[in-house]
Amino acid sequence: MKSLLGWILTTFVASLIGFGLINTALAVEHDFEKIKKNYYDTHPGKGSHGKFWEPIPIQKYWNPKDFYSPPQTIKGEFTQADCVGCHQTTTPGAFHAWKSSTHSDLEAIRKLPDSDARAYKKQKISEVENNLRKLNLLKKGESLKQVGCIDCHGGVGVTKLDHAKALVMPDRVSCGTCHLNEFAEAESEKEQEWPQKQWAKGHPSHAVDWEANVETATWAAMPEREVAQGCDSCHYQQNKCDGCHTRHTFSAAEARQPEACATCHNGVDHNEFENYMLSKHGTQYLTMGKTKWNFEVPLKDHVNKGGYTAPTCQTCHFEFKGEYSHNLVRKVRWGFNPTPEIANNLSHPWFEDRKKAWVQTCTLCHSESFAKAYLDTADKGTIQGLNVEQSAKKVVNKLYEDGLLVGQKTNRPAPPAPEKDAAGGFFQLFWAKGNNPSRIERLYADMWEHDVIKHYKGIFHVNPGGYTYSEGWSELMRGYAEIMDEDTRLREADAAKTGKKATVSDASQLYNESILGGGGLLLMIAGTLVGFPVFRSSLLSFRSKRSKLSGK
Amino acid sequence: MKSLLGWILTTFVASLIGFGLINTALAVEHDFEKIKKNYYDTHPGKGSHGKFWEPIPIQKYWNPKDFYSPPQTIKGEFTQADCVGCHQTTTPGAFHAWKSSTHSDLEAIRKLPDSDARAYKKQKISEVENNLRKLNLLKKGESLKQVGCIDCHGGVGVTKLDHAKALVMPDRVSCGTCHLNEFAEAESEKEQEWPQKQWAKGHPSHAVDWEANVETATWAAMPEREVAQGCDSCHYQQNKCDGCHTRHTFSAAEARQPEACATCHNGVDHNEFENYMLSKHGTQYLTMGKTKWNFEVPLKDHVNKGGYTAPTCQTCHFEFKGEYSHNLVRKVRWGFNPTPEIANNLSHPWFEDRKKAWVQTCTLCHSESFAKAYLDTADKGTIQGLNVEQSAKKVVNKLYEDGLLVGQKTNRPAPPAPEKDAAGGFFQLFWAKGNNPSRIERLYADMWEHDVIKHYKGIFHVNPGGYTYSEGWSELMRGYAEIMDEDTRLREADAAKTGKKATVSDASQLYNESILGGGGLLLMIAGTLVGFPVFRSSLLSFRSKRSKLSGK
Amino acid sequence: MKSLLGWILTTFVASLIGFGLINTALAVEHDFEKIKKNYYDTHPGKGSHGKFWEPIPIQKYWNPKDFYSPPQTIKGEFTQADCVGCHQTTTPGAFHAWKSSTHSDLEAIRKLPDSDARAYKKQKISEVENNLRKLNLLKKGESLKQVGCIDCHGGVGVTKLDHAKALVMPDRVSCGTCHLNEFAEAESEKEQEWPQKQWAKGHPSHAVDWEANVETATWAAMPEREVAQGCDSCHYQQNKCDGCHTRHTFSAAEARQPEACATCHNGVDHNEFENYMLSKHGTQYLTMGKTKWNFEVPLKDHVNKGGYTAPTCQTCHFEFKGEYSHNLVRKVRWGFNPTPEIANNLSHPWFEDRKKAWVQTCTLCHSESFAKAYLDTADKGTIQGLNVEQSAKKVVNKLYEDGLLVGQKTNRPAPPAPEKDAAGGFFQLFWAKGNNPSRIERLYADMWEHDVIKHYKGIFHVNPGGYTYSEGWSELMRGYAEIMDEDTRLREADAAKTGKKATVSDASQLYNESILGGGGLLLMIAGTLVGFPVFRSSLLSFRSKRSKLSGK
Repeated sequence: MKSLLGWILTTFVASLIGFGLINTALAVEHDFEKIKKNYYDTHPGKGSHGKFWEPIPIQKYWNPKDFYSPPQTIKGEFTQADCVGCHQTTTPGAFHAWKSSTHSDLEAIRKLPDSDARAYKKQKISEVENNLRKLNLLKKGESLKQVGCIDCHGGVGVTKLDHAKALVMPDRVSCGTCHLNEFAEAESEKEQEWPQKQWAKGHPSHAVDWEANVETATWAAMPEREVAQGCDSCHYQQNKCDGCHTRHTFSAAEARQPEACATCHNGVDHNEFENYMLSKHGTQYLTMGKTKWNFEVPLKDHVNKGGYTAPTCQTCHFEFKGEYSHNLVRKVRWGFNPTPEIANNLSHPWFEDRKKAWVQTCTLCHSESFAKAYLDTADKGTIQGLNVEQSAKKVVNKLYEDGLLVGQKTNRPAPPAPEKDAAGGFFQLFWAKGNNPSRIERLYADMWEHDVIKHYKGIFHVNPGGYTYSEGWSELMRGYAEIMDEDTRLREADAAKTGKKATVSDASQLYNESILGGGGLLLMIAGTLVGFPVFRSSLLSFRSKRSKLSGK
Repeated sequence: MKSLLGWILTTFVASLIGFGLINTALAVEHDFEKIKKNYYDTHPGKGSHGKFWEPIPIQKYWNPKDFYSPPQTIKGEFTQADCVGCHQTTTPGAFHAWKSSTHSDLEAIRKLPDSDARAYKKQKISEVENNLRKLNLLKKGESLKQVGCIDCHGGVGVTKLDHAKALVMPDRVSCGTCHLNEFAEAESEKEQEWPQKQWAKGHPSHAVDWEANVETATWAAMPEREVAQGCDSCHYQQNKCDGCHTRHTFSAAEARQPEACATCHNGVDHNEFENYMLSKHGTQYLTMGKTKWNFEVPLKDHVNKGGYTAPTCQTCHFEFKGEYSHNLVRKVRWGFNPTPEIANNLSHPWFEDRKKAWVQTCTLCHSESFAKAYLDTADKGTIQGLNVEQSAKKVVNKLYEDGLLVGQKTNRPAPPAPEKDAAGGFFQLFWAKGNNPSRIERLYADMWEHDVIKHYKGIFHVNPGGYTYSEGWSELMRGYAEIMDEDTRLREADAAKTGKKATVSDASQLYNESILGGGGLLLMIAGTLVGFPVFRSSLLSFRSKRSKLSGK
Repeated sequence: MKSLLGWILTTFVASLIGFGLINTALAVEHDFEKIKKNYYDTHPGKGSHGKFWEPIPIQKYWNPKDFYSPPQTIKGEFTQADCVGCHQTTTPGAFHAWKSSTHSDLEAIRKLPDSDARAYKKQKISEVENNLRKLNLLKKGESLKQVGCIDCHGGVGVTKLDHAKALVMPDRVSCGTCHLNEFAEAESEKEQEWPQKQWAKGHPSHAVDWEANVETATWAAMPEREVAQGCDSCHYQQNKCDGCHTRHTFSAAEARQPEACATCHNGVDHNEFENYMLSKHGTQYLTMGKTKWNFEVPLKDHVNKGGYTAPTCQTCHFEFKGEYSHNLVRKVRWGFNPTPEIANNLSHPWFEDRKKAWVQTCTLCHSESFAKAYLDTADKGTIQGLNVEQSAKKVVNKLYEDGLLVGQKTNRPAPPAPEKDAAGGFFQLFWAKGNNPSRIERLYADMWEHDVIKHYKGIFHVNPGGYTYSEGWSELMRGYAEIMDEDTRLREADAAKTGKKATVSDASQLYNESILGGGGLLLMIAGTLVGFPVFRSSLLSFRSKRSKLSGK
């Protein structure tokens, strides 16, 4: 009886987790071996474009699983004491960071009074010890004294390490051996499924960000490997945990601060950091948070114990229905970038439910009516920006179809394999030769990959300048005006040459009509169905970035 | 006799206040009812373009006076205890922010030792209590215990609130009921008058920033209301006080830090925040201020008690002749953007006096000779940038006059009403269709609305890169070169078509000659007088932004 | 015997210093008078372009040696007590800053317990006292009580100052009188010699940054002196020490923080600050450093006593082989900007040795293998960017040679003397008239002066977006695509006019072939030898910036 009930409960809970409906921080018993197996099974290694590129030396640090082997310069077997003895001189900064960390002295944590903000770590240590006991890495009754160099670079509980043979650079599994809940939470991002397959399963998320990179044709095609690997230096969260918890401090308090996200989440196509910092939320953090909020408290206590008077990246994106976890995609709606495939489906329950979850997040401080009003504003404003981008796309594709791009017939080399040519393709931001891309294509590539994304992220992060005039809308207007200007010139020049009358590009007519429902959507579908070749090739270029990922 | 003297004194003081000559923080008795009446009388509501747009839901929070009504989801009458009872669960972040604020526990302030930096607030509480007693909102002998939810969302001293009927979102008057001095100071910005009517009375200032927005034709014309409202999310200081004193903390210490200004004062046409932060002043704040300066002390004590070793936004812009107040425009000279109408009148006593007031500000730290030298440099450098922008303007206007803009005769739709077409108009930053704007116009729009403003703000905020190469001058040079390049191409193409000889645009000849005095000014005046239609229409486009405001 | 040994040792040590092999912080006895003489002897004053410009008033503060004279408004002789008596009222901010500084109360330092992070300053005071005794500025047995206004603005130990006659603005020598080691270290930057004369002796460095400015033809040629002087407001480190140690605090703790470098090291052609802040190093500083690291400890103790868990600008750039000094150029390799002359010589021992020194720097925290792998990546990635820029250069130069630039034959005024015309020259970022520069030239000028520099600095400061998509590579791709597009249009238009067939620019063929070794290099050398006139003139334009400096 008891076991049947247990089975029912477990299945129910597991399915809830599968659907992302409950937080994995609940007292769910995670199976380390199973998660570990799935982690390695789903890791793409070099991916399907692997034959087109070879790793450069630095990449062994971003993906140690596939590329790392120990240096042959240091021979011999070493204990933890040896590690410390040598590295406190050879790499004192790394040693010191560890020495000042929680890892170096668990006893100090155990002695913390309950009033200390870090006291919750006592429970965390017990949790870790339980995990290790189950894996026979810690004996019953034994307690963990320290997490030393050798535990991560050799294996938990290892006492001697052959430096030239057995040294490892830790991956998610290494950290997950102790931090099982966090590992399970983070891996659960892979369960995400988009209702209309806007993205492949699990995408976009930290859990598959390495895959996202190696499956991007442009990245594999780039001859300049040292530039290409620059993308890895953010796209390695799938491989390691120190993107947020910097080695060798591995601080939770660090990872709770907005700047922890800044290295990767800034710039032309994901300027979340700038938007947050310039929002009222960010200025609260900068004026009040820096000196008065306590980042040592767990996220769930940020208001009542931490004294936060505004959200951070973490308090919104780790939260889902009041629970906090390392699965950051449970409220994802527009994802990385706005597309018609998302815009046209926002009334689907999948999107509606997630919007409700966002309303709940905002009501931590704001009224429901405020939260709904703002989220509606942000959805509509995003679609307005998307309309502009889509209108420009038609103009560029029509020029390509008509063979009127500058140099299109005289000097347009194809991009290197596995990338394929397309008007305004993603590759045109990273590769150029002859007249590929032509000016107008690069203008469009910036619109779809930069401006409309900034527009969307500006409005959702409540940064006024981010979607009105400094970035976003006003830049989309510039792109549109430039593209229309080019279109007119190219068509007038062609007309002068051929003696025909230049025509205003029909493609521009869509602008200012909604792509949602109505004629806009029909036109778009029609364009696809009748086999608009350029339109398709451009879509392809977008798909090529995530071909394996979107299943298209 | 006594009353006559009183009358004389009052009149004298009032006139001084009217002319912005003395600080309202002096022991002037402000008349709340009169200021309140004037506040509502001068508020434009939807403004003169009101028929062209309807508010969207989120706007009720930016302008509650005109658009807010309570939600009908919560029925019943509630006390302050009820507010807290419910909202500490439904919106705990808001509750906590208030709970940690001065408002929630005035007794705690009263108990502060005089040595505490916040001790000045004891005096502030007495001041507030006096104001309330005069308004019969507090009985004689009674003292204020707390400023609770209900005092702001219902009315000071209200004990029961009908949530569905009487709930209000506070406006300037709500805050001003207690904080009368601050209200009076802030409202006194409306008294500002420009000697040559460069701006309408009161403009530009926080006190009329909502008016500035709704009277901008482009804003009213934009079909994308969700993008347009982005402007409101800064342009609401006329309506509310929480732009600087964020709800529900309402912290003075927060509002004294530079980041408090950042959400609104950053970006393409008012990058004051970036300029400050990168200036020596800003780096002092970032290195020394963040941890060592005490933002709890009132601005007037920032040097001797607060330990500031550099100015903040607030210490310069709230100050006038040694006094600090919420009237920030008493030293305004170039205002929002440099124009010939200002450049040509800097020797007028109005401008000279304000320059002297700036010298006094700078001498808090710098010698008078340093201050004068720098301010002269900044004036001259600003005019140099203005010269470039004005030269470019003539080139663009001439092309428009000659009908040579790309698509001008074939595909130039007019902007939506109430906006009107013009070459290089303000609207071209926010609206585009067909070949309106053409590329060269957008280039010029960026010059006058972005680059010359950044140039001016960079030099005045002492950010070297802000006016030399990263922004400002070098960008003006780019704009000018691009415009001249376009001009030559368009005229050569026209010449090829018509068989006439292409001419170098005369309009460019002005460049590098001062617009101050001499030929430049005469040409400019002549251009206006003889009815240069394009020139006027472009001026008009600028005027359209602030048509009601400048009285032109 | 003893003196012979002494001579040998001194010579040896001196030669080591000369070669930058040992740190001048060692117990080397610096000769103040000799360093002072050399300082003044090597100072260029107005420089070789001096006849083309006159200083404006504010410049007397950037270069007091050549331009400052005391104000005549204050007459009389004053003591230190008089200074304080007057200036605590007239410039209270300056007074307060000094009053809170180490300078104002040396006794307070002497009383610090050895456990205090600032205790090292006791030794510093002794050092200063020894220096002063040798110069007969302090009597034997006498101790320094305070460094007052008069010591710096009149001379160490001066008791009375004639304000209208003898007041000075301190220069490097003034500070160096006490701080001899730091003066000697800073001045030793002038010893730097590039093995293939890529830069003139001492360049680029703080020690000659004023010279770099006044010897730049464009700067001297600019008619807009108020804009031109903006460059001085950073290029004055050769003249004064308060660029980093802001007057009147002169704080070492301030100067050890990254923001101390921000005013000068940000923006389009030296965005080190942005790169650092967005790197993992910078985010560690922002999350952990701001509140937990102790900036009062000397740089050498930053890890063990200061608790730094990541480097700052200072910990890397002041360091050389484990020693810290004010000579920041001992590890310079690529210097201000990447050039073929550097790229082609990286295997020279001079460059190799410096790379080894960098590896040593990185191993403070990272393994040697990591450090080498990353530095190799950065070198290669930089060269990849340089290839793109060099390819674009050939296209632009060929157009100039062929006379095909827009307006080249009809409206191309020469820049003002002493600047000379050249395609894509440095001057085109700061000066424009008619069709000089044409659009394509400005595009190229941005590539070589902005984009490739950002690319290089992004990759070396480990800011992923800085060299992949937000800045650097993707911007170089844009520049290249725009230039190729222009090239095709200009050549097609010419072909249409002349009836000849338009040819694809041969110049673009270089792209994607390494400039290192092989055909690329040979072509480049050939181009120079056979007297490619445009190529030379463009090189000249680059040289003109530093004509006196590079010896070319």
